[in-house]
Amino acid sequence: MTGRDGGADLTDPGDAPAIVLVRPQLADNIGACARAMANGGVFDLRLVAPRDGWPQEKAWRTASGADRILDAARIFNSVADAVADCQRVFATCPRPRHIVKPVLTARGAAAELRALAARGLRSAILFGPERAGLDNDDMTHADTLVRYPLNSEFLSLNLAQAVLVMAYEWCLATDETPPRSLMTHESRVASKAELENFLAMLVARLNDTRFLANAQKRAGMVRNLRHLFQRGEVTEQELRTLHGVVTELAIGRENAER
Amino acid sequence: MTGRDGGADLTDPGDAPAIVLVRPQLADNIGACARAMANGGVFDLRLVAPRDGWPQEKAWRTASGADRILDAARIFNSVADAVADCQRVFATCPRPRHIVKPVLTARGAAAELRALAARGLRSAILFGPERAGLDNDDMTHADTLVRYPLNSEFLSLNLAQAVLVMAYEWCLATDETPPRSLMTHESRVASKAELENFLAMLVARLNDTRFLANAQKRAGMVRNLRHLFQRGEVTEQELRTLHGVVTELAIGRENAER
Repeated sequence: MTGRDGGADLTDPGDAPAIVLVRPQLADNIGACARAMANGGVFDLRLVAPRDGWPQEKAWRTASGADRILDAARIFNSVADAVADCQRVFATCPRPRHIVKPVLTARGAAAELRALAARGLRSAILFGPERAGLDNDDMTHADTLVRYPLNSEFLSLNLAQAVLVMAYEWCLATDETPPRSLMTHESRVASKAELENFLAMLVARLNDTRFLANAQKRAGMVRNLRHLFQRGEVTEQELRTLHGVVTELAIGRENAER
Repeated sequence: MTGRDGGADLTDPGDAPAIVLVRPQLADNIGACARAMANGGVFDLRLVAPRDGWPQEKAWRTASGADRILDAARIFNSVADAVADCQRVFATCPRPRHIVKPVLTARGAAAELRALAARGLRSAILFGPERAGLDNDDMTHADTLVRYPLNSEFLSLNLAQAVLVMAYEWCLATDETPPRSLMTHESRVASKAELENFLAMLVARLNDTRFLANAQKRAGMVRNLRHLFQRGEVTEQELRTLHGVVTELAIGRENAER
């Protein structure tokens, strides 16, 4: 894992599955796979009999900085050699085949890969050549199949994209990012007291205008304004901006009426 | 949606979000995005000021048959025009920016997009140019940000792969494939009676050999064999194969002993 010449400084936690590209055809695709692996924090790349030999400069060009993964990639003559040190082998398999094996979704496989890693077991995932996919002999080395539940009318998935889906699911299997949050880098979400302070000021300024002159409608209109500003999380910085806007508009109004 | 010359026969259910590529640079990437969209069943492609003009033959070459999406792609001069008919706009945003907006994961966004579609609302997702991503003005058109919780040390995601992650999550948001199943195309899972039948036959054949001769160990060894064959789901076809294997081995043994 040393001796790389450049690229991103990537940390390998060492528990991710090996990605085994079986007879890959295009070096660009191998590079794009390395990039996809880096995206998901997956670092062990193994190549079985790449068609055009190895190493190939083109791969480093499409890796977008994931050089370390390509530098450390290992070459094997057969699938059996490539997975010899692994306890579990998954095979990606887009088309139905007459094979009887457990089939997992990518998400199901990621959960199982995490469970295997937690037990200290080493796993590999096989990806077939660009056009044909894994052949029947390749599949005999796998104990588990992985099928992505994508659009059944259009299953043609680019090699790097197939790798990305697994790397993405591997990464997300332990991710704890809440599905929804509010991005507040330099500001914080305003307290209800701060919001109330602004609303009171707004209503006070509007009291000077004809906007709230209709006594019958007044309460409803104030309520509508309140609901509008309660709808999303407002930040303290935005409230200051709104204070300024209302104050300035009111000043302009006074000047115009003078 | 008519008038395409070739490519896959894709059915558009019409409820998926529009994919808006803002100032995309490379036609190959636009084609690869169309392919990724087809993978996830997302069909409405909109291009804002593609750098090298439109249409470009290169895009159709990398679309792998997703021609219909490219044929129907619409061109706009500005983000505002591209999203004018949409009620909700999501923006993919890999790097932290000083913007205060709700932030969703890709999975969270997919769930929200499905909920919006169920209400009959039209959504769009903005993807920025390859190198720079969306700029600050582009972001003002979005009400919600989407960030993929990927490897924070390596966030450089290819445009088509960014589109694939959203298309994949869109597709999976309603997918009901069980995370684990057994692929049995031509065979069916054997019943316990069938398994018992095989095990009884195996034990009977082994009774003729020295394998079960040790009376003390016999019960434990038979139990181990039972556990072994109970471990995974065995199919009816596999059981027939096993019957044949045991029978043939036993015949060979008899011949050898003659």
